[in-house]
Amino acid sequence: MRIGELSRETGVAIPTIKYYVREGLLPAGRLTSPNQASYDDSHVRRLRLIRGLMDVGGLSVSVVREVLAAVDSPEESVHKVLGAAQHAITPQVVAEPEGMPEVRRKVAEMIRRRGWQVEPDHPSAEALAVALATFRGIGHGEFEEIVDDYAEACERVAAADLAWVGRNAEVDGLVESVVVGTVLGDAVLSAIRRLAHVDASARRFEEAEDGGAAPGAGAAEGGAAPGTGGR
Amino acid sequence: MRIGELSRETGVAIPTIKYYVREGLLPAGRLTSPNQASYDDSHVRRLRLIRGLMDVGGLSVSVVREVLAAVDSPEESVHKVLGAAQHAITPQVVAEPEGMPEVRRKVAEMIRRRGWQVEPDHPSAEALAVALATFRGIGHGEFEEIVDDYAEACERVAAADLAWVGRNAEVDGLVESVVVGTVLGDAVLSAIRRLAHVDASARRFEEAEDGGAAPGAGAAEGGAAPGTGGR
Repeated sequence: MRIGELSRETGVAIPTIKYYVREGLLPAGRLTSPNQASYDDSHVRRLRLIRGLMDVGGLSVSVVREVLAAVDSPEESVHKVLGAAQHAITPQVVAEPEGMPEVRRKVAEMIRRRGWQVEPDHPSAEALAVALATFRGIGHGEFEEIVDDYAEACERVAAADLAWVGRNAEVDGLVESVVVGTVLGDAVLSAIRRLAHVDASARRFEEAEDGGAAPGAGAAEGGAAPGTGGR
Repeated sequence: MRIGELSRETGVAIPTIKYYVREGLLPAGRLTSPNQASYDDSHVRRLRLIRGLMDVGGLSVSVVREVLAAVDSPEESVHKVLGAAQHAITPQVVAEPEGMPEVRRKVAEMIRRRGWQVEPDHPSAEALAVALATFRGIGHGEFEEIVDDYAEACERVAAADLAWVGRNAEVDGLVESVVVGTVLGDAVLSAIRRLAHVDASARRFEEAEDGGAAPGAGAAEGGAAPGTGGR
C-alpha cells in the first residue's frame, strides 16, 4: 500500500509517519520508484504498536525508540533482552525527595519479606522508594502500611501476565509481548483500579451519607463495607 | 520563612515557585514588606504535593491546577467533590482505535460480571476500552482473557486504598487523600508490579534456560512456577 493508505488505515498523519521513519521507529517502505514507497501489514501493526506505547502507555519518542530496539534485537539471552527492555520502560527518577535512605530500607525489607528474587537497587525499587518518600513528605507516611496489599495484588497480576506472555511465547514475539504487556498493562491496571475505586467509594460513602453519619467517620469505621472486603 | 528558604527546604527553584504562585497552584506568601513575602509549613507541604503529583504522578500543570481546585473546594457532597477530583486525574482518551464498540461491550460485561456499581460510560471504562482495543490492534487481543485477574487484584487494592483513606478521613483531608492515593498509588502499583515481574520472570526463565529447554516453551508450559501461583 502507499503511504496515504497506511495513514488512513492507522489514523496516523503522513508527516508523522515520515517522522517515525526518520527517527528509526518505523522501517522505511520498499521503494517502488524514486519517490514512491510501498508499505505492508507489518507497517500497519508497527504503527499501531508505536501509537499504543505513546498514547496509551505515555512513552516518549525516545523511550519508544529504545524499547523497539530491544524488541528488534536478535536476542542473546532472553533474560538479558528482557532486562534491557524493562530498563527502557522503567520511569527514571527525576528528583530525589527527602528521607530516601530509610524508605529504601523499607522497600528492601518488603522484597525480603516476600521472598522476591529482585536486587534491592533495581530501578523499580528506586521508583517505589521515591513514591513512598513523596507520600511521607506530604504527611501521608502511613500509606506504607498497605504496601503488602499492593504486593499481594501484584503477585497475582504478575502471575497472570507471565502466563499470558508464556502463551504468546514464540521467542520472536516474547520481548514484544513483555514490553506491550508491561506498558499497556499499566494503563489497564490503572483504569481498572479506578473503576474498583468508584465501586468501593459508591458503596461506602453513599451508605455513610444516606445513613446521615459524618462521611469521613463512616468511611473510617465501616471496616466491612459490602463488596470491598474478603474478595 | 523567605522564598530562598522555601526553595532550599523543598528543592524547588525560586522561579518555579513564583510560577506556581502565578498559575494559582500555590497560595501567595504573606507580604511582610512591599517586595518580600513570608511562607510557612503549609507552603512546604503544598509544594511537595505539587511536585509529587508532577514528578511521581506524571500530571501536567493544568491537571494539577484542576486537582488542587477540587482539593481546596469547600465540599458540597463528598461524593461529588471526589467525582470532580477523580475526573481530573483520569487520563483523557486521545485517539480512538478501531474496534471500540465491541471492546466497550466487553468492558461493560466485566463491570456487570463483577457486580460493580459503575456507569459503563465512566471515563476509566473508556480508558480501559482504548487500552484493550490497542492490544487487539497489534494482534494481542487475548490479553482480554486475564482482565478478570486484574479486576480481582484491583478489588484488593481498592479495599486497601479505601481503608487507608478512611483512616485519614478528616473530611478536610479526604479529597486530598483520595487524589494523592490515586495518583501516587498508581506509581506505587506500577513499580511493585514491575518488581513482581522481575521475580516471576527470574524464576521462570532462568529455570527454563538452566534446564536447557527452549525459553519460550518453558515459560509457556511451566504453569506452576514456584512463588507465582496461589498467593
